[in-house]
Amino acid sequence: MGWAIALHGGAGDIPVDMPPERRLPREAALRRILEMGVSAFSNAKYSPLDIVELVVRELENSPHFNAGKGSVLTTDGTVEMEACIMDGNSKRCGAVSGITTVVNPISLARQIMGKTPHIYLAFDGAEAFAREQGLETVDKSHFITPENIERLKQAKEANRVQQDYTQPIKKGGEKEMPLPDGDSKLGTVGCVAVDSFGNLAAATSTGGLVNKMVGRIGDTPIIGAGTYANKFCAVSATGRGEAIIRETVARDVAAVMEYKGVSLKEAAEYIVHEVSPKGTTGLIAVSPKGEVAMPFNTTGMFRACATEDGLMEVAIW
Amino acid sequence: MGWAIALHGGAGDIPVDMPPERRLPREAALRRILEMGVSAFSNAKYSPLDIVELVVRELENSPHFNAGKGSVLTTDGTVEMEACIMDGNSKRCGAVSGITTVVNPISLARQIMGKTPHIYLAFDGAEAFAREQGLETVDKSHFITPENIERLKQAKEANRVQQDYTQPIKKGGEKEMPLPDGDSKLGTVGCVAVDSFGNLAAATSTGGLVNKMVGRIGDTPIIGAGTYANKFCAVSATGRGEAIIRETVARDVAAVMEYKGVSLKEAAEYIVHEVSPKGTTGLIAVSPKGEVAMPFNTTGMFRACATEDGLMEVAIW
Repeated sequence: MGWAIALHGGAGDIPVDMPPERRLPREAALRRILEMGVSAFSNAKYSPLDIVELVVRELENSPHFNAGKGSVLTTDGTVEMEACIMDGNSKRCGAVSGITTVVNPISLARQIMGKTPHIYLAFDGAEAFAREQGLETVDKSHFITPENIERLKQAKEANRVQQDYTQPIKKGGEKEMPLPDGDSKLGTVGCVAVDSFGNLAAATSTGGLVNKMVGRIGDTPIIGAGTYANKFCAVSATGRGEAIIRETVARDVAAVMEYKGVSLKEAAEYIVHEVSPKGTTGLIAVSPKGEVAMPFNTTGMFRACATEDGLMEVAIW
Repeated sequence: MGWAIALHGGAGDIPVDMPPERRLPREAALRRILEMGVSAFSNAKYSPLDIVELVVRELENSPHFNAGKGSVLTTDGTVEMEACIMDGNSKRCGAVSGITTVVNPISLARQIMGKTPHIYLAFDGAEAFAREQGLETVDKSHFITPENIERLKQAKEANRVQQDYTQPIKKGGEKEMPLPDGDSKLGTVGCVAVDSFGNLAAATSTGGLVNKMVGRIGDTPIIGAGTYANKFCAVSATGRGEAIIRETVARDVAAVMEYKGVSLKEAAEYIVHEVSPKGTTGLIAVSPKGEVAMPFNTTGMFRACATEDGLMEVAIW
């Protein structure tokens, strides 16, 4: 028993020879934000729910990840962000989709959880609620980076919906082949945390897919798909959203623990390596005992974790 | 082995002394639409996926249920419909939220499943896709019935979010008490079907909750919450959406079968009677062997089912 925390910045086809100028800033961001999460455990006023919100806010604020600032663009060149947060003990949860001006969608999800009779608000209604609650909003241009404008242009030239984590597409062909010098800076973000009393929480935030249709909802805000927490574990998943929805990935890690009586590691590895199609899924998960699992069936997953007994890790492949 | 079909028109606190003028038209609609579904099995061109779509379209077109025409109103007096469809073998699925002009949201969900790289579209993007695909659309007023205008008025006077299936609220108090002479005509609709080869499909459609916030997404379109199908079973749930989301009700029926190895009936009853909070949940489910389960932990559930070996049932309590 002891606290534990894990975070991710997206799973996907990350080239192993990723250039240092692309890799280092992301690793540094993961380390800095992990350390912020770790220090929060020593402050008694923060619950695991507070900590996952805090960590995901920082990941949203970093332009290195596909959430908040740095979100990828829809086919219309707009940003439509999604987020979800869930508390393990109470199973209380909040989710948002179609967010265009709220600086931290994860905090909006938390407000929906705390201050409405609902779980999930989307598009104009969610934006209106954010304003009512006085959440920080900005001009839509805040979220758009030059890299994502270029990424959308390339995706349109290749006429495909690009996964958020893949590389720029070679002009004129090889649609599914990542470039060896590709830019994998983008990825959904998430955090799971458990305190030394076994209280669990999970949070996930994303800009979705490059060149997605306007109005597309992915796995991130779906309780049980991209995000889930109960008394058995807290899970945040990342990868190909449509595959994660079909396999109800986050709920299934908990369901395998609950209904088959296996450990967190066994359940997480079973779902990622035996159930989810290869190349689609990564996840981070913690158990009430402070165990951490971070399996993925993609080339890599930007991830970091720390536990009370001194483990601290930042890794990609 | 043999085909089987089940449909529902919502679960909730349905008064046992519901007046005949409210009960009979609903029972008649369920019977007529059940018979339509049954005859579809004798036509080789219809798959279970076609049949659940066909049946839910009819339920949407009936003003007696809270889906399509007859949908309840948001706090702004508008209609925002949701629907979801899923095929058991392939786990392919489609979902929509925030639909305001499409006559049959379930058919839009099916088009998203078949013709986009995505699973789930919402609000303006979903409406735009419906127009691109040439789906039938109408003026928003088509969906609004005088009963639902009155229902919203009563809900606002009582200052609460009313469940779709409850009764008009007594003026001036007793917020959670249904009236004995109440009008329970409204309910989410759904259908599950299996053919004699064991192919499964599920579909659900709803207008949501009376007086819901604009932008609210409920359980219906969430794969694993209100709707789910795989090789073990097909499930459509109804009731308090937020509770159904938290408990991932539809996925959990299948997960209990898969991970605990129990029968459809045992799994469905376990989820409804042991897991879901009392008064929140009803569901219909079929297995590849043609078994049917229709448990609920509410006062009643408008439901109907038929199997190849001659069972035919329409029931409320």
